[in-house]
Order: sequence, then structure tokens, then C-alpha cells
Amino acid sequence: MSQPNSVTITDVQAAHERLLGIAHRTPVLTSRIVNDRTHSQVFFKCENFQRTGAFKFRGAYNALLQLSAAQKQKGVITYSSGNHAQAIALAGKLLNIPATIVMPDDAPTVKQIATRGYGAEVILYNRQSTNREELAQSLARERALTLIPPYDHLHVVAGQGTTALELIAEVGQLDLLLVCCGGGGLLSGCAIATKALLPNCKVIGVEPELADDATRSFYSKTLQTVKNPDTIADGARTPNLGKITFPLVLHYVDDMVTVSEEAIIRTMFFLWERLKIVVEPTGALAAAALLEGVVKAPHANIGVIISGGNVDLAQIGKLFS
Amino acid sequence: MSQPNSVTITDVQAAHERLLGIAHRTPVLTSRIVNDRTHSQVFFKCENFQRTGAFKFRGAYNALLQLSAAQKQKGVITYSSGNHAQAIALAGKLLNIPATIVMPDDAPTVKQIATRGYGAEVILYNRQSTNREELAQSLARERALTLIPPYDHLHVVAGQGTTALELIAEVGQLDLLLVCCGGGGLLSGCAIATKALLPNCKVIGVEPELADDATRSFYSKTLQTVKNPDTIADGARTPNLGKITFPLVLHYVDDMVTVSEEAIIRTMFFLWERLKIVVEPTGALAAAALLEGVVKAPHANIGVIISGGNVDLAQIGKLFS
Repeated sequence: MSQPNSVTITDVQAAHERLLGIAHRTPVLTSRIVNDRTHSQVFFKCENFQRTGAFKFRGAYNALLQLSAAQKQKGVITYSSGNHAQAIALAGKLLNIPATIVMPDDAPTVKQIATRGYGAEVILYNRQSTNREELAQSLARERALTLIPPYDHLHVVAGQGTTALELIAEVGQLDLLLVCCGGGGLLSGCAIATKALLPNCKVIGVEPELADDATRSFYSKTLQTVKNPDTIADGARTPNLGKITFPLVLHYVDDMVTVSEEAIIRTMFFLWERLKIVVEPTGALAAAALLEGVVKAPHANIGVIISGGNVDLAQIGKLFS
Repeated sequence: MSQPNSVTITDVQAAHERLLGIAHRTPVLTSRIVNDRTHSQVFFKCENFQRTGAFKFRGAYNALLQLSAAQKQKGVITYSSGNHAQAIALAGKLLNIPATIVMPDDAPTVKQIATRGYGAEVILYNRQSTNREELAQSLARERALTLIPPYDHLHVVAGQGTTALELIAEVGQLDLLLVCCGGGGLLSGCAIATKALLPNCKVIGVEPELADDATRSFYSKTLQTVKNPDTIADGARTPNLGKITFPLVLHYVDDMVTVSEEAIIRTMFFLWERLKIVVEPTGALAAAALLEGVVKAPHANIGVIISGGNVDLAQIGKLFS
């Protein structure tokens, strides 16, 4: 297959320049116990310390900054009950761009409050009766808003790729990079950056077993979907890869693997207990593939992206007890 | 009162040299929401990321390294059910010094396992019938072991002081440093370092209301005690300041304050939810004084020491729900 040129390393590098001093340059943590267990040097890129608690801010800000003056004035809209909602809301606030977020009416109150707290307008819909993308598109048309989808957008992909760019700039040589995969924005962006800077570094995407659409798509080379998968990793419940991200994943990613729900929870517990960091289920996916032995790579330099840390602490105790 | 010269900045600097490449140089985190709320620049020195999950490793390693060859060969003993136990156990392992830990028989199994995991011998005692210090002293005599108490030890105090030394080296000017206080090892060590490097920086110690012995001792200038205080901050349940730490606290510390149990829990929740770090109750004391408005210092550079992150995750959910 010819190289897809929808997003390139130049786009990722330009996004990196745009984010300087705005996004956090998140810390890279290491752990002796992890190194001992894997017989490798493991570097955790901690996007749970990113603004709004997840990598999503990178793509959202990169996309909003590149809108035309007219688009900025009219505002943006997106659909998300999760980290992309808060990311667009904060980016909108920082850039003085009105933001509208379409969110299911059963989204946790704390997330609605956080999103409104950044000054965004939240429009609630009923999950059963309404298709969120259609609602967002119709509102976008009515109100002349620009739709910034959560992953299938060139500038969003380029922004997410800055995560790997920073990691590689900090640690140098990597033999393997593990990245979680929902809609494929983070995975494809990071793969583009990695293959440009370290052509011999393998990039592996990690999904929940219960939401393995991207893995099946990768192997069958035909877009596969899942519907409302019952995984705890809410960031990976997206139905499928996108028109932009699917070809990028096919071209730049070396392999896709899946991990069980139990593996995700054990890994979350491990990261909380041993690394002392609060990681959300989706944020533990990439680490789970390594720590649970799904991916084995002894004597290697391994990058692991911890994608976010937004959890409901009042609920999490049940998981660990 | 004349300056106590039991421990000086020279001792702290020497400890710093000994710990280079052995102890973690722990990260300093900042938070926009904290800065906005306090109208100050706040720097969290995160000893929850220290080896064994708490600052205690600094003092333990500094003490063990300075033993004579004969002492090292015979081994060390201490009493602790908490972070000092694991710190001595790991330092002993790294330095090939046999370590014996006297621990109550109701100490969490996970802590017993962790301590044994570092190769230490764990001796259990009954809390009701046995005085742990007497038991440790008698075992020390019988077995010719050197007793390294948890805080009232010159080399332990000097080691803990490296926490403030590192923080100041990283952030430069501080107007205020907040430090939790149990037996006063961390507080006095950090106060010595701070007053030597930044004479105008105020140092305030923070205790639970329910274990306010050091605060009462500070104000009355007479050693006060508490007995088995029912605070969630287990690291601050120590009965009193020590013979070494009390004069140091009196001389170097500017003020002592207390925080309620509710304030400790709210602050833990805040640090977990917003900073995405796992902090134990004692580790949240200093932050609680600031975030709950017990100490007010607008327009200042404020250092806050997060002393540790060792909690039983299976229990913590109950606290937050």
C-alpha cells in the first residue's frame, strides 16, 4: 500500500510548536519493579498529567488553533461524554472560541460540570433515541459551527502524535512503543511520529478484547465495528477506526493486540499501587499488554503511553476491593 | 535559645551526596487549579514517588551507609509498621546489611510481605502486651544489632532534610515551606536545610488535630505527648517529638498548625482527582493546611511536601464514596 500522506511528521512537528507552553510536557516515569519484571527498560509517558487529565487536549488545541477567524468567531461543536469534551472545552476557553458539546443525558454529572466549568455549552441527548453524530452535524449546520470530531480529523491526529514526539525527544532510542487504541487518533499520530524518528521502533496498538474492532480491522484489512462494547475502558468503546485513522493504522502500525478486562483492572491497580499514579482504565491498556505478557520484548527500550487519568474515585474503590 | 548543632546543613548536604543515584530525585508537580485557588505558585515535592513510596528511604539509607564495618556485618533493627520499616529493609538489602523489623501482629499483611520481600526479618509482637521500643532494644542487645529508630536519629534527620534541599535546588526562591509532622524527622531536617539556604523562607509544620502533640509542644516549649491517636494519618500517630527533633523543631520551625480528619480526606481526594497522584493520608497533611485555608499565603512561592503514597487501595474506596 502506498504511504498515506494525510498526516505526516511535519504536521506533528508543527503541532508540537503550537502546543509549546500551552500543553504540559508530561513527565516520563520509570519503575525498577517494572524493569525487573519485563527484563527491559520501560518508559511511561504520563498523559494523565496532561491538562484536563488526558492526551486529548493536544489534538483539540491543535485543531482549534488552525480554524479561520470566521470559524473561530462562530464556534465549534463536538460529541463526547469523555476526555475529548473537556479538551475541546478548555481549548475553546483558552482561544476564546465558543464550544458546544453534545453529551448523553446519562453522562456523569461530574463530567458535565467539568465541561461547563470551562465555559462550554453542554447539550444533552437521549442515548436510546438519538444518534449523537447526526445531532451534532445538524446543530453544526443550523448554528454554523465547525465540527471537531474526537479522532477522525487531520489536526487532531497530528496533535495526538506530539505525545510520542516528546517521549522520543526525552528518552532517545526506543525499540517498541505501546499505545492504546479507541478511534485510532492517538495510535496513528504516535505511529507517524515514531516511524519518522525511529524507523526500527515497532509500534503496537492495544485494545480491550471486548472492543477489538481495530484489531480485526488491522488483520482483515477491512473496517470492522463493535456496538456499545461492555468494556471498562470507556475511551475504547468507539465503534470503529475512522476514514483517516484506519489507513494510517494499517500503514504505520506493526501489530494490534487485545487484553482482557481482568488484565486492565490488575494493571490499573498495579499502576496506582506501585507507580502511585491515578490511571483510568483506557490509560492502562498499553501497560496491560506488557505487564500481562501479551507482548513480550526482553532486553528492549519500551515506551508505554498512559493516555489519561480521569476516573470517578467514588466508584473505583469497588473495583479494587 | 542557642542554635542546636546536632544536625546542620553540612550534614544534610553530605546526605545528599550519599543519596545521589540511589534515592530518586522525585518530581516537583504544579497545578493551575491549585495556583488559582491559593493565588500563589505552589510546588509539590512528590515523595510518594520515592523508593518504597515515601521519604523514609532517604534517612534510612543515610543512616545505614554510615555504620561501621562491624555494625554493618551484625545488622540493624528497627520498630515500625509503616514506611520506615520498608525503608530500612530496602536500604539493608542495597547495602547487604541484615535488617530486622519489629512490627505489630495486626500490621497489614501487604506491609509484612513488602518488608519481607526486601529480605528483612519481620518479628511480630502483640500491641496490647508489648512495648515495641523495649522489645527492639532488648533484641538489639541480645543480637548485637544497631537500632535505627524511625526519626530520633542524627543521620535519619539529615537524610530527610535532603527532600527540602532538592526542592529548593529545583525551584529556587520559596517564601513558605509546609511539611507534615509525626516524630519530626522530616520537619526538622527540612527546616534545617531551608533556613540555611533561604533564611527568609517560613517553615510550618502540619499535624492532624487528633495528634497535635508537636503543636502543643511547640507552643508550650515543653514536650507533650499523644497516645494512640485515632487519626487516619498513620504516619503522624507517633506519641511525641524526639530528644533530637524537639529542640530542632523549636529552633528552626516558624509555626505549627493542625488540620481536621475531614480536611485530610478532602485533600487526599483532591490530590488524587486533580493531580492524578496517589497520596497517603499523612502525605496530604501539608497540602491540607494550604488547600483548606488553615495557612494563607497569597502571592507567594510555596513548597508543599507530599511525604508518601502507601495506602491500601482496597480500603480507600470506602473513604471516597
